[in-house]
Amino acid sequence: MKEFPRDMDAFRAVLEELPGPDGVARKDAESRNEQLTKPPGALGRLEDLAIWYAGWRGGKRRGLDAPQVIVFAGNHGVAARGVSAFPAEVTSQMVANFRSGGGAVNQLAEAAGARLDIHELELEKPTADFTTEAAMSEEEVLASLAVGWNAVAPEADLLVVGEMGIANTTSAAAICAALVGGTGSQWVGRGTGLDDRGLRLKASVVDEGLARHAGSLGDPLEVLRRFGGREVAAMAGAVLRSRMLGIPVILDGYICTAAALPLEMASPGALDHCVAGHVSAEAPHARLLEVLGKKPLLSLGMRLGEGTGAVLAIGILKGAVVCHSGMATFAEAGVSEG
Amino acid sequence: MKEFPRDMDAFRAVLEELPGPDGVARKDAESRNEQLTKPPGALGRLEDLAIWYAGWRGGKRRGLDAPQVIVFAGNHGVAARGVSAFPAEVTSQMVANFRSGGGAVNQLAEAAGARLDIHELELEKPTADFTTEAAMSEEEVLASLAVGWNAVAPEADLLVVGEMGIANTTSAAAICAALVGGTGSQWVGRGTGLDDRGLRLKASVVDEGLARHAGSLGDPLEVLRRFGGREVAAMAGAVLRSRMLGIPVILDGYICTAAALPLEMASPGALDHCVAGHVSAEAPHARLLEVLGKKPLLSLGMRLGEGTGAVLAIGILKGAVVCHSGMATFAEAGVSEG
Repeated sequence: MKEFPRDMDAFRAVLEELPGPDGVARKDAESRNEQLTKPPGALGRLEDLAIWYAGWRGGKRRGLDAPQVIVFAGNHGVAARGVSAFPAEVTSQMVANFRSGGGAVNQLAEAAGARLDIHELELEKPTADFTTEAAMSEEEVLASLAVGWNAVAPEADLLVVGEMGIANTTSAAAICAALVGGTGSQWVGRGTGLDDRGLRLKASVVDEGLARHAGSLGDPLEVLRRFGGREVAAMAGAVLRSRMLGIPVILDGYICTAAALPLEMASPGALDHCVAGHVSAEAPHARLLEVLGKKPLLSLGMRLGEGTGAVLAIGILKGAVVCHSGMATFAEAGVSEG
Repeated sequence: MKEFPRDMDAFRAVLEELPGPDGVARKDAESRNEQLTKPPGALGRLEDLAIWYAGWRGGKRRGLDAPQVIVFAGNHGVAARGVSAFPAEVTSQMVANFRSGGGAVNQLAEAAGARLDIHELELEKPTADFTTEAAMSEEEVLASLAVGWNAVAPEADLLVVGEMGIANTTSAAAICAALVGGTGSQWVGRGTGLDDRGLRLKASVVDEGLARHAGSLGDPLEVLRRFGGREVAAMAGAVLRSRMLGIPVILDGYICTAAALPLEMASPGALDHCVAGHVSAEAPHARLLEVLGKKPLLSLGMRLGEGTGAVLAIGILKGAVVCHSGMATFAEAGVSEG
């Protein structure tokens, strides 16, 4: 599967026949893990991560040497409703900042030895305000999914997707409320720094959107089209492409996880190749991770987006992989077993 | 302070006049943090870490490019009581494994770009069984503290100390019970994999030790001498030396934290230049961190020792430092503030 599906029906068909992990590679990794010079289980989650990673990489060369970080940026019509502490022009200003190397994600990606790509999606054309109409047309959501799909480097051995988009926590909250259930107040957080009044407004804007699209909440891809941003759909497209390519994914915070949610809702297990990099300080993220049954690797009170939490977690996954591949076995080292 | 103190009185005197952080460097870092291109507080604990690190590094060049990991190894007389799931010869076997690059800590240190040094302390002479006499003479504990003191590289900009020593979780439990209070059962864990019966035995061995040395539990350095291992005392010596050199420390798991505890008990604030790298799956570690008021950076169910949890956390601290030093300010990037 190299080409992006030609239409929404073809996209849905892809979701229905997703490749799984390589059972033999997984078994081999489990067996090797038992022989390494450590008490059984003493590396905790690192052991599970290494086995999981081996399964999804399959017969491909072990190691984690080519992580790719992609930041997608988009603008949201709903920003005009005053749901963010920052003005909408900050999206393009921050894209320029990423391009000149000044963002947090630039520093973290470099420290992690990761390639960083920036894709802005028609910043001059914000999506429609979802309280009055669908955020995107079918053509627009397909085009955005395709940007994400095509942004994944086939030679990458790990993917992180991040985002920049003023008001996109409002989009994320609407997607979660639509797909998981509940009201706006249960799914909104303070984003970049809303006060109590802003938080109430944000919740009511989400509720307006839910009411406006009440007849379409049962279809995850329709929910993505109606509430998502272009960058949100691009993240979903990239996560799906990585599954087709056998590239494991570290999910970032609330927006990233909400962007991936429609895939899982449309095709249970679609996010099995993804781990949660961290739990964000954006309050509803913890709840969303529970819904997905994903335990975060980090919990450091971060809430910046850009992929930063997931990029920081690359080092954890890399640690798991290098221990698994580089440690001596009891037999090799001549160490007595317990 | 270059030379190791000549006797225990001189060592105690060092503990009473510890250097603090550089207030100006800390203030400068706080001010810079406020100007970086992110919503206030959005990097969570990374912001606190960067400011803490800048304070302890003082006027020295920013960046975190020269972390040092030191693994100390020692043997414990109390191992003869059957308190470990592994035989005592594993200590020297694992030292050989570290020297040939096969341990978990080797892989993680390399991935973190850290220098790794191994120091074994008279493995052929285990300490005395603390249930019958003091584990070490005053000369022995001083010699072990000196090994740690002298092992720290003055050019390092971060220190991690790890350990290898069959039965040293028993030593750690006795130190904690002696200094914090409570019985053996409250401070022992399963170590490398004890069953329930072994766990009960381990608790009773700690209780025997507490009873044997009941008259000396009020003096933290005496507690270190009576219950510590050589590698445990070496870790304490290295942590103290790092304070004198302005080198921040990431503490590892239960044994490392217990080794550092006597410093804090003898001189409150003596561990202010240390952060907790992770919380171990060894049950009493979480409690010990609470006593010290230290919130772990990672919680991944690890319980291997060797410094592994702390080495994995180097990437978190490095992430904090590179964001702080490398991000653009709002003014530099021309980004609108909220």
